Amino acid sequence: MITHLPLCSIPNPKKVLVIGGGGGGVLPEVARHASVEQIDMCEIDKMVVDVSKQFFPNVAIRFEDPRVNLVIGDGVAFLKNAAEGSYDAVIVDSSDPIGPAKELFEKPFFQSVARALRPGGVVCTQAESLWLHMDIIEDIVSNCRDIFKGPHVDFKNPVNPIDDSSSKSNGPLKFYNAEIHSAAFCLPSFAKKLIE
Amino acid sequence: MITHLPLCSIPNPKKVLVIGGGGGGVLPEVARHASVEQIDMCEIDKMVVDVSKQFFPNVAIRFEDPRVNLVIGDGVAFLKNAAEGSYDAVIVDSSDPIGPAKELFEKPFFQSVARALRPGGVVCTQAESLWLHMDIIEDIVSNCRDIFKGPHVDFKNPVNPIDDSSSKSNGPLKFYNAEIHSAAFCLPSFAKKLIE
Repeated sequence: MITHLPLCSIPNPKKVLVIGGGGGGVLPEVARHASVEQIDMCEIDKMVVDVSKQFFPNVAIRFEDPRVNLVIGDGVAFLKNAAEGSYDAVIVDSSDPIGPAKELFEKPFFQSVARALRPGGVVCTQAESLWLHMDIIEDIVSNCRDIFKGPHVDFKNPVNPIDDSSSKSNGPLKFYNAEIHSAAFCLPSFAKKLIE
Repeated sequence: MITHLPLCSIPNPKKVLVIGGGGGGVLPEVARHASVEQIDMCEIDKMVVDVSKQFFPNVAIRFEDPRVNLVIGDGVAFLKNAAEGSYDAVIVDSSDPIGPAKELFEKPFFQSVARALRPGGVVCTQAESLWLHMDIIEDIVSNCRDIFKGPHVDFKNPVNPIDDSSSKSNGPLKFYNAEIHSAAFCLPSFAKKLIE
């Protein structure tokens, strides 16, 4: 979902940045999108990648995809150095906001993301749990409302659906489909009040 | 959800049967529906009701609702003795299919439910987890397809929405709303293939 929600919401994403994601789970899903030409991944912990390659070879095989550029380093610094407007989508597949991932939940990071995205580009970030972390989510939403000014993207109605032809190299989609995409934006009432 | 999905899918539900549910959580939600005139509850374990009254008084207060008829007994036997076509909705808020609730997942029970429902009545049952129990769910769906012949109910588009006036006596709805209702019927691809 963290991959297809953003990539199916915009036409023809070409350049994608993944912050974190060294476990490799995001890569096969980004790779399904035939329009994607470049997948930059910045993972802070090399051991995560090594363990994935050792224990999840069917997933980690995607590190060999020629479109993938893996950098072991700090995602915050990587984005500060990224050229302005260089990405169609940024996917933040981080750990929790305690420890090394803390800055990935803060306003300066999202300002860097906004600068690195081309107009109409999108970001999707791991934002914890509606049930347990509404305070964190409210902060992220509030910051993003200040920072991201458009153009408008209609996330609820995916304009770039994944089709079955993507299954040839990656196997069929087990979870994601266009209905689930729209359903993901239907919020329970307690969250609707705070977020919308 | 186990209450509003069925009750919001049919116009003016009047007579509702709850099998299980002695914890009391279902009752406040059934009670929100102003059209409901009678709520029969058949709970097998009196201790569940007693513990709910002792430790969750804000929930268990609904046992005092004059529309509620609580029977301590076997839900399978209760349904066999129910008059034909006597309920608009049956809600099965059971424990898991190991032990006393086992029969509530089997074909003869659903046959009793179908007989006790008026034409166009609906049943909603606790059916475990899509992630862990697809075999159980497939059996329930297959049995229900054999047993329930219509008339057709459009579950995805609720015809009897809960409105804010129900909040006066029960507090605002924290989770359920019409969007969440429709979203609940959007299945991940692995489940769609097996169920639809």
